[in-house]
Amino acid sequence: MLDQVINIAAVTVLGVLEQAYFSLQVIYARRKYSVSPPSTTGPPEFERVFRAQVNCSEYFPIFICTLWVTGVFFSQAAASVCGLLYLYGRLMYFRGYSESAHSRLAPLYFSAKVLWLLIGLSCLGVLNSMCQLYLGLDVLQQLSSF
Amino acid sequence: MLDQVINIAAVTVLGVLEQAYFSLQVIYARRKYSVSPPSTTGPPEFERVFRAQVNCSEYFPIFICTLWVTGVFFSQAAASVCGLLYLYGRLMYFRGYSESAHSRLAPLYFSAKVLWLLIGLSCLGVLNSMCQLYLGLDVLQQLSSF
Amino acid sequence: MLDQVINIAAVTVLGVLEQAYFSLQVIYARRKYSVSPPSTTGPPEFERVFRAQVNCSEYFPIFICTLWVTGVFFSQAAASVCGLLYLYGRLMYFRGYSESAHSRLAPLYFSAKVLWLLIGLSCLGVLNSMCQLYLGLDVLQQLSSF
Ligand SMILES: N[C@@H](CCC(=O)N[C@@H](CS)C(=O)NCC(=O)O)C(=O)O
Ligand SMILES: N[C@@H](CCC(=O)N[C@@H](CS)C(=O)NCC(=O)O)C(=O)O
Ligand SMILES: N[C@@H](CCC(=O)N[C@@H](CS)C(=O)NCC(=O)O)C(=O)O
Repeated sequence: MLDQVINIAAVTVLGVLEQAYFSLQVIYARRKYSVSPPSTTGPPEFERVFRAQVNCSEYFPIFICTLWVTGVFFSQAAASVCGLLYLYGRLMYFRGYSESAHSRLAPLYFSAKVLWLLIGLSCLGVLNSMCQLYLGLDVLQQLSSF
Repeated sequence: MLDQVINIAAVTVLGVLEQAYFSLQVIYARRKYSVSPPSTTGPPEFERVFRAQVNCSEYFPIFICTLWVTGVFFSQAAASVCGLLYLYGRLMYFRGYSESAHSRLAPLYFSAKVLWLLIGLSCLGVLNSMCQLYLGLDVLQQLSSF
Repeated sequence: MLDQVINIAAVTVLGVLEQAYFSLQVIYARRKYSVSPPSTTGPPEFERVFRAQVNCSEYFPIFICTLWVTGVFFSQAAASVCGLLYLYGRLMYFRGYSESAHSRLAPLYFSAKVLWLLIGLSCLGVLNSMCQLYLGLDVLQQLSSF
């Protein structure tokens, strides 16, 4: 049973480490630019690092949900590969955004595409399982037998 | 095994799609009102759309946790119905808040009520499972036999 | 099967209740200091309560992920105990931050340590399961037999 989720669990832990890294970067930026809590405004350099972490945190739960639904209902391999690509895209997003607002765009589009793929695969997996359960029809199986 | 969570997985994917929709609305609002990142302040019209998405994102992990705990430990049917109502309430909240701060209130109360129901059911489900496991007592079973 | 996650499910519900409590505190603070949405700025007293809730919300998904991965792949007992300590630390953080920015620091360090412990244990659990599955090696088992 656990074999079927071990790789997505590993990607989850990697994602957690990435979020922890982003938080640490905000803490360093707070020191560097002397922005003491509860303030969240300061020089643009600080605000970009700050917003980069907020944006990644906002998408993290969505990412985890689609990662697991895809992994369980579609394919663990597909979910893990997409998951690694997404985490890589987010690292690039964070680094790009820290440099300039414009440099965040390319990795943003990349990670958004991967996330849409994960959303699409999780829809497919869930719809297929519903067809199997309620209609007795295994659509994905039949498609792959062509 | 997967049959017992397929409906809550479907509600989860629906919730993810809703969050993606909210994010897209913020991106459109940023364009419409010319609020470039990392800024998050602008005309009240922008700020309301922005805050609506932030507020929904904040509650999303809480929602997912109670959805799954209720679905697994109490009843999948109850969890799915509450889940759909919650997502509907959040859509109304987002639309209302986008129009005026006051219009967010009615759907906020509605979605808060549904969330409290989910929290209550997940407490019930977990407590019942604990009683079963540690005391050998199936409270829900006995209640429903009256 | 469910017996192996019942305690972490209970800690999850407790975490949800804590987050709901933090949200209610922000609503009360909004009334007390007359900070109407969509505004998020006001007297420092309000901003500290506001930021305390935002910070706890940001870490909540990370906490839930490590709680469950540790509970499933390492040990449910260890995960539940760390989970309770983390939630206690976050309550102290919220109360401390509400009083002064400085009072948030001690509980922040405490909850960060517990979170790092959870991250470490989830890494260990996942790595051990991977070794077992891909190399046929149960490292934790062998370590504990010394
Ligand atoms: N969002 C956080 C990320 C980093 C973090 O967790 N910082 C700690 C130590 S400076 C904190 O207590 N932040 C206060 C806050 O988020 O308001 C921040 O803005 O600081
Ligand atoms: N919270 C986001 C939601 C939408 C989003 O993901 N926007 C992208 C493209 S404009 C972004 O990089 N936002 C920058 C940011 O969140 O600071 C926002 O405020 O923009
Ligand atoms: N982050 C929320 C936490 C509490 C909450 O959910 N408040 C409700 C009722 S005042 C709301 O609609 N807040 C508007 C907002 O978050 O912008 C806040 O700042 O108010």
